[in-house]
Amino acid sequence: MNAKPVNLTEALQSFTEVYSPRIVARMNDYDVRVAHARGEHVWHTHADTDEFFLVLDGRFDIALRDADGHEHTVVLYQGDTYVVPRGTEHKPSSPGGSILMFEPTGTLTTGDHHEGRIPAHVDSTTGHELS
Amino acid sequence: MNAKPVNLTEALQSFTEVYSPRIVARMNDYDVRVAHARGEHVWHTHADTDEFFLVLDGRFDIALRDADGHEHTVVLYQGDTYVVPRGTEHKPSSPGGSILMFEPTGTLTTGDHHEGRIPAHVDSTTGHELS
Repeated sequence: MNAKPVNLTEALQSFTEVYSPRIVARMNDYDVRVAHARGEHVWHTHADTDEFFLVLDGRFDIALRDADGHEHTVVLYQGDTYVVPRGTEHKPSSPGGSILMFEPTGTLTTGDHHEGRIPAHVDSTTGHELS
Repeated sequence: MNAKPVNLTEALQSFTEVYSPRIVARMNDYDVRVAHARGEHVWHTHADTDEFFLVLDGRFDIALRDADGHEHTVVLYQGDTYVVPRGTEHKPSSPGGSILMFEPTGTLTTGDHHEGRIPAHVDSTTGHELS
């Protein structure tokens, strides 16, 4: 539970790591997380949960792969929201930006399944506390 | 499910009513809603759910009443987030602003219980579709 407000800009200024979300709020059994984005994430899937994205700054792309293996990319800018449906393979990438995510507490950044090696700049985590 | 991105600024520009949330995204059994705020809301309580607020623009205050009847007000500006814990009596107010909320689908803007009459400028709703 949040006793005090948390400002998203201040939260983002408190760390520099990319693809390493910080938990800014908890509500019910969900987390609100923010992250810096830059470079390619990894193809991954959350079998049991949708994932909500809001672009806070910059640009954030989400490549999506359908059940037939066809890929397309959703290009998002500041203020854009998008929900990746559960079970959908996706790979975020960004030339630089920051995002807010809603997802169930415990959701791993690299999903239940990911493709290939996790790049060194991608943190496989359920989110870190704000420091 | 969102097939297309929804931009929060465009969503807010698509309607003018205050305290009448529009649903911009659905994820799992939760809604992401946006609303314009101006004036006094009504004291109300959500017995079974926390409620997440993010101020998108302007100022948004949340008066809170504890179990002993003591009141205090959390003052929020753009980029500030706050979670009102379940079972906590609260009354939003604003000199003008807009907010994003994250809450279970079906959550009523005026809670399971509210105090007194609902003002004419407060829409008692579970959220409207974007038009």
